[in-house]
Amino acid sequence: MAKRKFWGWGAEGAGPSEEQARGVVATLAARFGAPLELAPVPRVEEIALAAPRVPAPDSLRAILVDDPHERLGHTYGKSFRDVVRALRRDFAAAPDWVAFPRDEREVEAVLDWCTRARVACIPYGGGSSVVGGVEARGLAASYAGVVSLDLGRQGRVLEIDRTSRAARIQAGVLGPALEDQLRPHGLTLRHYPQSFEFSTLGGWIATRSGGHYASLYTHVDDFVESLRVVTPSGVLESRRLPGSGAGPAPDRLFIGSEGMLGVITEAWMRLQDRPRFRSAAAVRFAGGEQGFANATEAARRISQAGLFPSNCRLLDALEAANAGAGNGDESVLLVAFESADHALDAWMERALELARSAGGVAPEHVPTKTGGEGARDGAAGAWRNAFVNAPYLRDVLCRAGVVSETFETAVTWDRFAEFHAGVSTAVRDALARICGGGTLSCRFTHVYPDGPAPYYTILAPGRRGGELEQWDEIKAAATEALIRLGGTSTHHHAVGRDHRPGYDRERPALFAKALVAAKSALDPAGVLNPGVLVDPA
Amino acid sequence: MAKRKFWGWGAEGAGPSEEQARGVVATLAARFGAPLELAPVPRVEEIALAAPRVPAPDSLRAILVDDPHERLGHTYGKSFRDVVRALRRDFAAAPDWVAFPRDEREVEAVLDWCTRARVACIPYGGGSSVVGGVEARGLAASYAGVVSLDLGRQGRVLEIDRTSRAARIQAGVLGPALEDQLRPHGLTLRHYPQSFEFSTLGGWIATRSGGHYASLYTHVDDFVESLRVVTPSGVLESRRLPGSGAGPAPDRLFIGSEGMLGVITEAWMRLQDRPRFRSAAAVRFAGGEQGFANATEAARRISQAGLFPSNCRLLDALEAANAGAGNGDESVLLVAFESADHALDAWMERALELARSAGGVAPEHVPTKTGGEGARDGAAGAWRNAFVNAPYLRDVLCRAGVVSETFETAVTWDRFAEFHAGVSTAVRDALARICGGGTLSCRFTHVYPDGPAPYYTILAPGRRGGELEQWDEIKAAATEALIRLGGTSTHHHAVGRDHRPGYDRERPALFAKALVAAKSALDPAGVLNPGVLVDPA
Repeated sequence: MAKRKFWGWGAEGAGPSEEQARGVVATLAARFGAPLELAPVPRVEEIALAAPRVPAPDSLRAILVDDPHERLGHTYGKSFRDVVRALRRDFAAAPDWVAFPRDEREVEAVLDWCTRARVACIPYGGGSSVVGGVEARGLAASYAGVVSLDLGRQGRVLEIDRTSRAARIQAGVLGPALEDQLRPHGLTLRHYPQSFEFSTLGGWIATRSGGHYASLYTHVDDFVESLRVVTPSGVLESRRLPGSGAGPAPDRLFIGSEGMLGVITEAWMRLQDRPRFRSAAAVRFAGGEQGFANATEAARRISQAGLFPSNCRLLDALEAANAGAGNGDESVLLVAFESADHALDAWMERALELARSAGGVAPEHVPTKTGGEGARDGAAGAWRNAFVNAPYLRDVLCRAGVVSETFETAVTWDRFAEFHAGVSTAVRDALARICGGGTLSCRFTHVYPDGPAPYYTILAPGRRGGELEQWDEIKAAATEALIRLGGTSTHHHAVGRDHRPGYDRERPALFAKALVAAKSALDPAGVLNPGVLVDPA
Repeated sequence: MAKRKFWGWGAEGAGPSEEQARGVVATLAARFGAPLELAPVPRVEEIALAAPRVPAPDSLRAILVDDPHERLGHTYGKSFRDVVRALRRDFAAAPDWVAFPRDEREVEAVLDWCTRARVACIPYGGGSSVVGGVEARGLAASYAGVVSLDLGRQGRVLEIDRTSRAARIQAGVLGPALEDQLRPHGLTLRHYPQSFEFSTLGGWIATRSGGHYASLYTHVDDFVESLRVVTPSGVLESRRLPGSGAGPAPDRLFIGSEGMLGVITEAWMRLQDRPRFRSAAAVRFAGGEQGFANATEAARRISQAGLFPSNCRLLDALEAANAGAGNGDESVLLVAFESADHALDAWMERALELARSAGGVAPEHVPTKTGGEGARDGAAGAWRNAFVNAPYLRDVLCRAGVVSETFETAVTWDRFAEFHAGVSTAVRDALARICGGGTLSCRFTHVYPDGPAPYYTILAPGRRGGELEQWDEIKAAATEALIRLGGTSTHHHAVGRDHRPGYDRERPALFAKALVAAKSALDPAGVLNPGVLVDPA
């Protein structure tokens, strides 16, 4: 695999060329009515890194690395804040060592060392966190050192159960490598977060990643059949079961635990047959805000009908236009169904009836297509390309000093209209105050019978050298509105360190108390990812 | 509501008449080739109850009751073991007091008293536990007394959100009262465990109850939108959200916690529109064991097709015959779909195709019916009546000295054939050894894409006065086989005290450690339902 950029998204050499980047920036400069300049990307040699504060024990020499590229590459995740800090050459929080354990025994050995030597250990999958989940923030004073525990050398599918459609998989596998190993068996996990290329199974589970499905199987949670987790107190393995009612579900304590309770090393995952039938349509809702309200109602009706679309993605007028899927006035609802088993005409027909009943303009008849790419034509295809390329584009915008970020949430349908108005007002006000303008757009990434998961994107002219602080202010305003109006601080980006202010308000205090107690039982020295979800002990 | 029997299932006066009971027993005696006699049911006056060991504090006089009927009625759940012990007039474990708090403040007051006075507190919903979940077993030495905390006075639907299809509901509501309150709004929880009439929302959540749906929404877990829980350390309320990725799901720690962490007092529950469309069919698989294997394959194919039937219940030849749905040689697969939104022809058509592809004989065309009762004709209707009446019948069998119990589990499809053979052999051997014979039958109550939930029923001639000990031996053999062969100790009957031997082997030791730590944080005095899930501190 090509070497990863240490400062931004993707492999070295991937993403837009400098010429393409200049084109993007020119377009945006025209929109903002202000010149934009592309800052140069950092080089490893420019960054002064302190020597590791703690020596590597001889027994771990083979797997501990202090190579600057690795230490820099493991300093941050991939949020706007992360890329901006990298462009500032600010790597003060770099880990002292990066560990690349080759098997579970070596994971245990690293945790033993961390516990003995009071070294903070940050489990690291693909490093695509956008919430400060893999960053050694504020740990220098309390720990002798920091090690980033990279699971990347444990990426094999170990066992396949075709009959039950499940596989035992090492946690360090990246999305494409996982699908490559499943494809010959006709199987797929069908979990496609935007970070798919550069995130791992273990990372998905530890952060309750949100994937491909717009309904039903939204988070990775439901795909987990059982887990194997290494903790400083020993190894825990849950039983492989299709369902159970035996006490609180053990896996659910670790799903979303963000590395604070243990290191997920393996999981049995529920798989699916690869889809053969596809049906996709775009439904248009003209009329600006009223169109968006109508499209929301359509999404609600479809989500409550028991049809379980694979896509039910509402793009507001701006998102639709940006993705080349709308004319700037109309909201677009992308509806799709996929199946490995049956044609989808009855499903799509009913979904489109429901969309029309809410005022949408939908194609008359959408036949099921068989084969791989049929469903990716037109509006859906345009949107999908934009989706996959967004992180590369975001890096270009960072270099241009543009504040470019997203935040996502979920809220019940009854509250949505007021919620959306309140969040939009709060964020637009913040944009005007802090950046003198900018755009806010919204889409639904997932829909549930009881509410949507709205995903907001902001784009604003930043003040060169101050864009990180500008974003922090905007984000604080957004979080305040999300929590005040009844949403969650995060639907699928996890909590990490960045979402703590919202999460601390949203999460019941006594649950935090129980979580801290559980952590003390499993990680008595408190070395595992201190600072995510709860305060370090 | 009519007064409940203190010794068995249902209200006083309900269930079969003495004449009907004698008829049932005569039939069974003929089958066993041995005479059976009906023991008289116990009367309250026959039972000598010790006075409460601990005085009721003045402040709780209004809600603490030591009426013998209540103390006796709150001594046990409703398993075979429970009824047999009641028929033996063995109520040594009766609680000292039964508390009937009228609101959450009074729940807190009871917990305060328990913590101060070291009184064990056993949360009690409908009392339908079949695993010793509400029984003060072995607590006399360590606690000053025992109080059964009955939530039955808190049974109202407090708030309805029609748009998001959700309601805030008090935990003490029984099934029928809940549905009565939802019906005027066109809504339903659609959670129908066999105990529906005499079990509560809070009990369902605390025990991860399994309900009506054969697929997708099997346990009550997925219907929980948020919880309110009173613990000795304070009140915890989770946020009402359609989905979230913010840390480990708080609700999941309490769902299945069986009263050891707190008392669930309220929940926001996800509801559904009341079904209008129904389609049901019975598919027959002739040929004894091969027919059962073919039916299993049909159930697997349907469960993996993404059709989500509301029923996909496989009855083996004996179960089918007992329910009047089969001829004794054929296994029967009951397939049904329900919807509030759309006709189900495409769904049923594909499910029957899959069933036929595995060797089943299915009706040619099954039209969708609209309205309430259409789907309950024929085999499905016969089976449903038997299902609802089973607990009453079981009580008759207890009185006749017949060992009559069930156990349920779940296992992945790849293991099922070997698992079923192994469990069947182990239990049949135990029946022959311990009871000199008897019958074992199997049905699938639920199916998942990765495996079925088989439910086994045994019926054997007991040794009068020794039937409880006989059952304990059979159950031990069954549990040993379930765990050894890869199943779970319980799919939807919870753990309580009876399932501890299996649960302790199945559940990861470090998860128990985390659970104990969480309990210490929330219930420092260890007064909440000591002995379920983990050992009392």
